[in-house]
Amino acid sequence: MNTTYAIKHRMEVEASPEALYTALTTEQGLASWWTPMISTEGTVIKFRFGDGKSGADMRVDETIPEERVVWTCIDGPWPEMRFIFSIAPHERGAVLHFDHEGWSEEGDFFRHCNMKWGYFLASSLKPLLESGKGAPHPLDPSI
Amino acid sequence: MNTTYAIKHRMEVEASPEALYTALTTEQGLASWWTPMISTEGTVIKFRFGDGKSGADMRVDETIPEERVVWTCIDGPWPEMRFIFSIAPHERGAVLHFDHEGWSEEGDFFRHCNMKWGYFLASSLKPLLESGKGAPHPLDPSI
Repeated sequence: MNTTYAIKHRMEVEASPEALYTALTTEQGLASWWTPMISTEGTVIKFRFGDGKSGADMRVDETIPEERVVWTCIDGPWPEMRFIFSIAPHERGAVLHFDHEGWSEEGDFFRHCNMKWGYFLASSLKPLLESGKGAPHPLDPSI
Repeated sequence: MNTTYAIKHRMEVEASPEALYTALTTEQGLASWWTPMISTEGTVIKFRFGDGKSGADMRVDETIPEERVVWTCIDGPWPEMRFIFSIAPHERGAVLHFDHEGWSEEGDFFRHCNMKWGYFLASSLKPLLESGKGAPHPLDPSI
């Protein structure tokens, strides 16, 4: 029985699996496509938005170079939810599968986050990798 | 038992429910945020992409002004799937819920279309309504 839901995206990028992995695992990379308000404390990455008071603290659970990155939200709007970035080689360069798991319902916040992740991945991470310039927060659409 | 899946998005726009409805129900509106390769035959809207050979024919099943638009794909990559645009007033102007229903699995094509719909809604329909300029195909990211 399906008791939880996940946000699911997929995109191909004209960049190497290594470049994709770097953009998902370094402060400079993450700041360039998600939010520049970022800090790291041990295995926890703190992402902030807006006035800097809201955001999410992500514990980095797995980092397999060129293959897989997994976070768990330990503070913020997605308590205990998991974020899985799966990387594979592709004829265009690399392909990313993204799963944001652990939703109890596909309600308004699920829909909001689904659209936001689509933006940050397709309209920020992808151009960052392909042209060197992302469009991180606060450039994301106010939906 | 959950036997089918749906792509689900939500966004707020700084525009009236009437303007949102118009963008979803007129050739000019649809051409300005989804694809300019569009033609109408009776109750069927034909959308084309790329070289003009691929695309989808949508039968318009419901149009309730300022409230609801429903299409069924009668030819193309989403056979018999339904597309539901639900409009409601919102303090910012209007809110759109979008559902693309009838998927048998959340596979790669589901993920691809989920990301594409996010783009066309948040990065093309929304700016069209708020600034007069969308970013329809072929400006969509090649994911």
